[in-house]
Amino acid sequence: MPSHAEKKQGSLAIVGLGPGNMEYMTPRALRVVAAADCILGHSSYLRPLEPLLTGKTVISSSMGKEVDRAKQAIELAGSNAVAIVSGGDAGVYGMASIVLEVLEHSGRVLDVEVIPGITAANAAASRAGSPLSGDFAVISLSDLLTPLDVIEKRLDAFFSVGIPVVLYNPKSRGRPHNLALAVVHARKYLDGTTPVAIVRNALRDDEETIITTLEEIETSIEKIDMHTTVIIGGSESRIWRMGDDVKGIITPRGYHRKYVY
Amino acid sequence: MPSHAEKKQGSLAIVGLGPGNMEYMTPRALRVVAAADCILGHSSYLRPLEPLLTGKTVISSSMGKEVDRAKQAIELAGSNAVAIVSGGDAGVYGMASIVLEVLEHSGRVLDVEVIPGITAANAAASRAGSPLSGDFAVISLSDLLTPLDVIEKRLDAFFSVGIPVVLYNPKSRGRPHNLALAVVHARKYLDGTTPVAIVRNALRDDEETIITTLEEIETSIEKIDMHTTVIIGGSESRIWRMGDDVKGIITPRGYHRKYVY
Repeated sequence: MPSHAEKKQGSLAIVGLGPGNMEYMTPRALRVVAAADCILGHSSYLRPLEPLLTGKTVISSSMGKEVDRAKQAIELAGSNAVAIVSGGDAGVYGMASIVLEVLEHSGRVLDVEVIPGITAANAAASRAGSPLSGDFAVISLSDLLTPLDVIEKRLDAFFSVGIPVVLYNPKSRGRPHNLALAVVHARKYLDGTTPVAIVRNALRDDEETIITTLEEIETSIEKIDMHTTVIIGGSESRIWRMGDDVKGIITPRGYHRKYVY
Repeated sequence: MPSHAEKKQGSLAIVGLGPGNMEYMTPRALRVVAAADCILGHSSYLRPLEPLLTGKTVISSSMGKEVDRAKQAIELAGSNAVAIVSGGDAGVYGMASIVLEVLEHSGRVLDVEVIPGITAANAAASRAGSPLSGDFAVISLSDLLTPLDVIEKRLDAFFSVGIPVVLYNPKSRGRPHNLALAVVHARKYLDGTTPVAIVRNALRDDEETIITTLEEIETSIEKIDMHTTVIIGGSESRIWRMGDDVKGIITPRGYHRKYVY
């Protein structure tokens, strides 16, 4: 079929950028962003990518426009290499689900790739020793998309089995009290001395990590904002010390039940 | 202090390598491995790093020697730049917790860095659409370090609140029946049509992804081995189709409760 103009074959990559620092972005994510014709994403996620964006169509948008952004990405992917980016992992409170929902609804057939990234649970945990270690749960305290009673039931289930719990979106202007509510549920099952890590801007500039406990978290609550991840330890978690310093949290995996060390 | 031989300052990095493919290993992990004097890890994780290992002390070991490996790493880190590596994320069923436990017990003071990697939950999810999307839990079915009754209670708690659950170590020679047990717990709360993703060798050679359901998982059970991650969808998860093909799982985040699309 040589005589008519070839229609360019499009593609759609849903890319997790990780914490927002190129040192923790995968080569695969970097390569796909560099090769894309069009990049869509929230402006704060696009900023660290600026050196890669020259000559591309860049569509930055603000929070809360995810459905529009998904529609636009799918439209463009008909004839362009499109990358739509999320902070962290695209499949965890990121763009993957809404893009795939809108794509399915559109009935289109496209070449789609989801590229994972380091999600805030793992980024934050790495700055606080080994607070997760084994089984854990991840939950967002935002009640924009999930009713608050569902969030509370889930928190209750997680804390009742003594696993570490990672709180995404622990506090924002719209929901200043959800974190206090989470602590109330935690205290039903866990000692006040259970360690808590508060990690702000994990693996980014202005990173700050506070190691505290359930009974003392109140004194650090004004440090917590929408760039913060909170990890509440499980029933076996304890403070990790080196010399005289509190360094983080250790949740033992259970080797102490099998070995002497 | 010029006249006496300087004692070389040691350091200890606990490095998550991600899925085991350099395309998904972070630049930070790569850099730290490349700069290390000594590398310790399970031989299967060291293999993809071979080009970086020339001239280094390489101590590879087999599974089940984690305590010895941790002790050796800490000993060497007194005067060497040491990297001890884990597949996935070092803080999730990796080496971080045991190394920090042994380090604390030793009373030594060392320069320590935990470097996160993409854990199997995120790697596997990326090959199956968007099965996690929001809140989820991660649990290992291995009862080597956690008693089986604790595992069962946790499974029950997770499934009872309808979230997607990621199963690590779903099957091995020592525990062929734990996966069937997990399915029994899931069926107490979830429809038989609940989608399940079985992802073997996620983002590695010989990758294979099977999308099935709770009531049909039995027919795929012989495909599941220790290199497999299983994701059981939550109460809102559904099969994702493109054209006539089953492509994966979508767990909606809840935009459908707020927007029309």
